[in-house]
Amino acid sequence: MMILVENLNYVVDKELNVYESVDILIKKENEKTKIVIGKNLLEKENLNKKDLKIIDGKNKCAMPGLTNTHTHIPMTLLRGIADDMILQNWLNDKIWPNEAKLTKEDVYYGSFLGGLEMLRFGITSFNEMYFFSEEILGATKEIGLKGVISFPIIDFGTPESKDLNKLLKMAEKFIKKHKDEKIVKPAIAPHAPYTCSKETYTTCKEIADEYNTLLHTHISETRYEVVEMENNIKMRPIEYLENIGVLDSNVIGAHCVWITKDEVKKLAKHNVKVSHCPGSNMKLASGGVMPLVEMLNEGVKVSIGTDGPASNNNLDILEEMKITALLHKAHRWDPTVGDIDTVLKMAFDSEILGFENNDIVLLDLNAPHLRPVNNIKSNIVYSANGNDVDTVIVNGRVLLENKKFIFGDKFLNNIYKKIGKIKEKFN
Amino acid sequence: MMILVENLNYVVDKELNVYESVDILIKKENEKTKIVIGKNLLEKENLNKKDLKIIDGKNKCAMPGLTNTHTHIPMTLLRGIADDMILQNWLNDKIWPNEAKLTKEDVYYGSFLGGLEMLRFGITSFNEMYFFSEEILGATKEIGLKGVISFPIIDFGTPESKDLNKLLKMAEKFIKKHKDEKIVKPAIAPHAPYTCSKETYTTCKEIADEYNTLLHTHISETRYEVVEMENNIKMRPIEYLENIGVLDSNVIGAHCVWITKDEVKKLAKHNVKVSHCPGSNMKLASGGVMPLVEMLNEGVKVSIGTDGPASNNNLDILEEMKITALLHKAHRWDPTVGDIDTVLKMAFDSEILGFENNDIVLLDLNAPHLRPVNNIKSNIVYSANGNDVDTVIVNGRVLLENKKFIFGDKFLNNIYKKIGKIKEKFN
Repeated sequence: MMILVENLNYVVDKELNVYESVDILIKKENEKTKIVIGKNLLEKENLNKKDLKIIDGKNKCAMPGLTNTHTHIPMTLLRGIADDMILQNWLNDKIWPNEAKLTKEDVYYGSFLGGLEMLRFGITSFNEMYFFSEEILGATKEIGLKGVISFPIIDFGTPESKDLNKLLKMAEKFIKKHKDEKIVKPAIAPHAPYTCSKETYTTCKEIADEYNTLLHTHISETRYEVVEMENNIKMRPIEYLENIGVLDSNVIGAHCVWITKDEVKKLAKHNVKVSHCPGSNMKLASGGVMPLVEMLNEGVKVSIGTDGPASNNNLDILEEMKITALLHKAHRWDPTVGDIDTVLKMAFDSEILGFENNDIVLLDLNAPHLRPVNNIKSNIVYSANGNDVDTVIVNGRVLLENKKFIFGDKFLNNIYKKIGKIKEKFN
Repeated sequence: MMILVENLNYVVDKELNVYESVDILIKKENEKTKIVIGKNLLEKENLNKKDLKIIDGKNKCAMPGLTNTHTHIPMTLLRGIADDMILQNWLNDKIWPNEAKLTKEDVYYGSFLGGLEMLRFGITSFNEMYFFSEEILGATKEIGLKGVISFPIIDFGTPESKDLNKLLKMAEKFIKKHKDEKIVKPAIAPHAPYTCSKETYTTCKEIADEYNTLLHTHISETRYEVVEMENNIKMRPIEYLENIGVLDSNVIGAHCVWITKDEVKKLAKHNVKVSHCPGSNMKLASGGVMPLVEMLNEGVKVSIGTDGPASNNNLDILEEMKITALLHKAHRWDPTVGDIDTVLKMAFDSEILGFENNDIVLLDLNAPHLRPVNNIKSNIVYSANGNDVDTVIVNGRVLLENKKFIFGDKFLNNIYKKIGKIKEKFN
């Protein structure tokens, strides 16, 4: 069924054009979802009300779906389990021991919770990396979000298997199985240069190339890993990845904080995509600031990720947009960087994940903090938060309406109950 | 009428104790509002249901009212009018010319909007500085918030009067008139050392001392003002304020970014209160970071302010708590600073403004991003935002319930309409 959103106060489209007092029509053409923006669409498009789902756009603003290009959604389960700790203690004492207790079923429910959180906050596409990928992909499809679900590889193993070769085979099988799905895409995720060997990276790259998927990896998140590599092999992580032939246009690198201008040029040269995770980087105090301005100047495609909810501690890209803007202004003592248009483009760019952004998010402007509207784009970036999202339409399907999930309260309460049960095993 | 909140999942009190599965009773004793926390209060306190307003606390967390210790709420009107600009251009080209157009009535409606926004976000007390103080105080009382409304003084005048002596007289009259009010308190606000002379500061200090009010002022927000003063009089702002006898326990200084360790010691010595405004400082890119850790180590009382919504661009202290934590961790490369307890104490400390914190804010935990609850204090600081506030009880009065203002939609729509009208005069 076609969807008509009538009488919207504002629309911001993915090219950042702003419209006032318009309608949006969401229709299917040859299996593809198309968005039409204009005045009086009911007449102009010659529509019949009975063929339409009609949504009232009064006191609302429409914008494209938001994208979260680096996350670990099952870590919702570990939200708040450890904060304000030194990274190594956080991992060794809290995160890893508790992760080891997670079953496939736990990961499924954690993914469902994370998916619901993203949907609630207007995120319609995301790039995931966590073990038990099959369960994450299943939850993503059930909710109806667009997800790149990347199968994580670590040389010393994951809870899925301690055997590297087995993991690589499982990853390939996972990709083969799901490569032709419509709204979810499988991918492969060698964890990071300090946890994966050269052979692991090159095998992953071959698999990504063969099946035409993304290769999702952590790059230069902390000083420690950079210094270690410099000491051991006299190369920095991006030099190394270039050297072993991994840098390419199907690579998406998360963090990229501790990189030089020369490394920025290499990212641009090989058309590597970057996921910037400012909230997580600040919270873990990994130090430094990702060179956003230098990357954009060189033409690197940069988008925004929340990272996992154990280090953020939510999946709110509206919040992350503001943090992005504030961090770079403060870092450079220059209020003109991290400007509204720059961060909006980063947050709308689902094409980085291979998804066309034909999703629509409505924000509820009936809130004191979103009044007046002197500049709707400013209100989105600097004043709004995830809870202002009112309605979310993914691929032509309404998944959230009037701030309510289509799944119903009973279903939700069951999820919350399962989640409450899982947390009892942590310490 | 007494209020009983039954079956709360969690309560965090102002000493940061955490309770599970308890009730809260809010009662009046000798005109004072008292909070009782415990299990089965209906029986224990021998209460009769018909004497009570009963609120269901299921799936909710209660916490004290939040405090916003530096703001300019009528600037809601200018929200989003200018962003991503160099401070001097922002002020000269956008803020000052448009502020000059504001009438008393505009400021009244802007204050009402700002007050509603703070109430929606669980802020029950605030420290204000803006011209047409009488109108701000009126709106604050109508809403029912606790406000310190400080009358601003600038040597070259404000829209209230261009004559400094007249302004000082008006300030004194304003303070005399309102000094015995219950939930609002008048105060005096010499703007900053670079806009007020020594004589202005000392006169303001005399008025503050005589009427037992706060003296609210900006201190060392930007490098520029510090360097100017060092060049001109060989003193830094806090040295100067000490030298002229202004530093004292009734002074609340906003920003205090560009200050030395020696100046931190002076703040501690004179028991000056500090309002930290990290979001605004980052957005305006004033550079540097307020020395929070040094201040706390010296025993300075530090709280959190949003600053005006033109430079933030909202009044969300829950958001500002997270920004505070992230900024200091990132700044010091140390995740243990800006920890949960530190920022919660800052946000609950309404005593800095002379208000006992006997207010109660309920957060709605029926949201994916607030599940599971591994640590309720972590969820408040790192996962929640202002819209998660469900119910606000100020001084024993319910002002927001189930996310709805007691004022009703018709009233609200009228405010929004007025605000929409006012913005037409800006350019």
